[in-house]
Amino acid sequence: MGDSLLVVHGGGPTAVLNASLYGAVVKAKAYPQIKHIYGARNGTGGFLREDLIELGQIPEKELELLLQTPGSAIGTSRDALEQEEYDKMVEILLKRGIGYVLFNGGNGTMDACGRLYKTCQEKGLDIRVMGIPKTMDNDIAITDHSPGFGSAARYIAQSVREVCADVRGLPIHVVVVEASGRNAGWITAASALAGDAGGDGPDLIYLPERPFDEEQYIEDVKKLLEKKKGIVVVASEGLTNQEGKPIVEPIFRTERATYFGDVSTHLAKLVIERLGYKARGEKPGLLGRASILLQSPIDREEAKLAGELACQAVLEGESGKMVAFRRISENPYRMEPFLVAIDEVMMHEATMPDIFINERGNGVTEAFKDWCRPLLGEELPGMLSLN
Amino acid sequence: MGDSLLVVHGGGPTAVLNASLYGAVVKAKAYPQIKHIYGARNGTGGFLREDLIELGQIPEKELELLLQTPGSAIGTSRDALEQEEYDKMVEILLKRGIGYVLFNGGNGTMDACGRLYKTCQEKGLDIRVMGIPKTMDNDIAITDHSPGFGSAARYIAQSVREVCADVRGLPIHVVVVEASGRNAGWITAASALAGDAGGDGPDLIYLPERPFDEEQYIEDVKKLLEKKKGIVVVASEGLTNQEGKPIVEPIFRTERATYFGDVSTHLAKLVIERLGYKARGEKPGLLGRASILLQSPIDREEAKLAGELACQAVLEGESGKMVAFRRISENPYRMEPFLVAIDEVMMHEATMPDIFINERGNGVTEAFKDWCRPLLGEELPGMLSLN
Repeated sequence: MGDSLLVVHGGGPTAVLNASLYGAVVKAKAYPQIKHIYGARNGTGGFLREDLIELGQIPEKELELLLQTPGSAIGTSRDALEQEEYDKMVEILLKRGIGYVLFNGGNGTMDACGRLYKTCQEKGLDIRVMGIPKTMDNDIAITDHSPGFGSAARYIAQSVREVCADVRGLPIHVVVVEASGRNAGWITAASALAGDAGGDGPDLIYLPERPFDEEQYIEDVKKLLEKKKGIVVVASEGLTNQEGKPIVEPIFRTERATYFGDVSTHLAKLVIERLGYKARGEKPGLLGRASILLQSPIDREEAKLAGELACQAVLEGESGKMVAFRRISENPYRMEPFLVAIDEVMMHEATMPDIFINERGNGVTEAFKDWCRPLLGEELPGMLSLN
Repeated sequence: MGDSLLVVHGGGPTAVLNASLYGAVVKAKAYPQIKHIYGARNGTGGFLREDLIELGQIPEKELELLLQTPGSAIGTSRDALEQEEYDKMVEILLKRGIGYVLFNGGNGTMDACGRLYKTCQEKGLDIRVMGIPKTMDNDIAITDHSPGFGSAARYIAQSVREVCADVRGLPIHVVVVEASGRNAGWITAASALAGDAGGDGPDLIYLPERPFDEEQYIEDVKKLLEKKKGIVVVASEGLTNQEGKPIVEPIFRTERATYFGDVSTHLAKLVIERLGYKARGEKPGLLGRASILLQSPIDREEAKLAGELACQAVLEGESGKMVAFRRISENPYRMEPFLVAIDEVMMHEATMPDIFINERGNGVTEAFKDWCRPLLGEELPGMLSLN
């Protein structure tokens, strides 16, 4: 069988995607039987063009920069592929003597991972394929959580905490912060942890798991404004109405991605128009998955570990699986990794369960906070309010 | 004369506004003749309601949290005041035995500072009034730069650096990041430093000092897309067209503040509609002035120093002035503080000079980068790109 290893990235990056790459490359270097360690340039696209980057020769000191490099250092892609393209991949793997393939990505990428695995099986080839979970959105099934989410959660929690501190002493009335996460509310919900350790949390949280009701929103805001000024609302980019339609028309759609319209601006405008109060929207967007200073230390460690374990698994004979995490204990946080069959996770989208959402659908439960808190990695910086 | 000191915050906060408060309070505590150290709750509003917070008794360890607290820990306001309100302030100062008043704020606040000073002079009172410069926008005149700007500059430079790293390996085509700064382009321009230390900088920068020409913008983007993918544009929230009108209608206006429309979304939509390429906009907004992890260490030091010096100045007999900074040398960076008469800075808005803007008006010059670089405080974290 082939004695080289290939890493392929798929989908949008996270703050720790390259930490998994680092883990995989460092682990692979420890196996003397591995001849080449390749990265596919720009995901499956580069794979199919046989455009492979040699990663085995990079000096350790440079390689360590991957732990603090946002984006995908080898590029990524988001193409939906046909069977003939999986056949083509197999040809390339055989030609280049690659016996081990690691796919690092989210649901779409796990689908590609599973289909390449099946193609290899059908052809009776001993090419081993393994998935590394990666998504800021935390929407991969089976695993307790996915690398990338903890950092996105830390980003939104600290950012909303800072916005709350800013707005608290201001003559602004309502600030709406838009959170990423597409159809899953995990990131939006994580903003509730802004209130930990002496900080202020958001006043209202709207998740895509509940239909957004404009009347209820206006009522919620109005009621709060009777008691305090400086209301902070966190809203998911993926909010839909009772009919399941986005509350703001997406500005662009591709086969696999939606570019959402500005939910934060829309909700701020509603406050201005219907209540006559000052309001503004903030939309950090891509910044929320690229912030190196707001990486969760635990997320970074787990991402690295997932890369290491995926590499180790294929070298020990495993194939057609994904690295996943199982929570052993919440406080203190303890987690153990395991392998799950790739077809159990392929294209299943994990959204927030009901026990994590409050009754009125405008906030989260303590159970959610307890679940999410350890993933932020360490306590948020303290602050002092005298006002 | 009065033996107590009052600190008043005005306008929007910065990442280091509370560092100046810390400097002023710690310095004041060192003068045994100071009886009370007060903060006006929510700016001039609280001042006029005689709503004063006692700051002298806060334990040192808690007080230190001010150095890492975003927003205004004692609140702030943005009210335009009448002469009778300055008369009222004087009454309160006399009644409460306050002989020293420090105003920490931007142009509007320096105006209030100057008017209170004049009111005291006209009444022949020895009440000493001093300004501490504070603005993320860097639009205060005379001083080389203002506390608050260095941190906003570090925020936009690192954020755009991260977005560039993210976008570089992606099948997205154009990302537009909106920068704060109102009518001054300083923060927008600082994004150019994203390219320092092995990072990628933005491809295009549009400043409010130049009229925005939609045709030129489309041409600029089109030309770049012929050579590369993953174009990053940074645009000021305050862009205006040839007629001086905002390119996007503001969503809200008050006497002293404008809530700008979404310039980033508008520019992304133009790319989609006119060029047919994928594009998206990001608008961190308030996050850019509240980030504690992206405080510039030099900015924080200078903010603290400005608070200390303002306090020291009034106690040494100065009044009617503002602390300012003069640059002695650029590399190595050396700065000296001085005092400037408040009426030299009152309501003058400092925008970017021509030598800092490139000829086509879509980028900055090396001279700007050399000027701005030291204010970021330390080198941005390194990163590795293999793509």
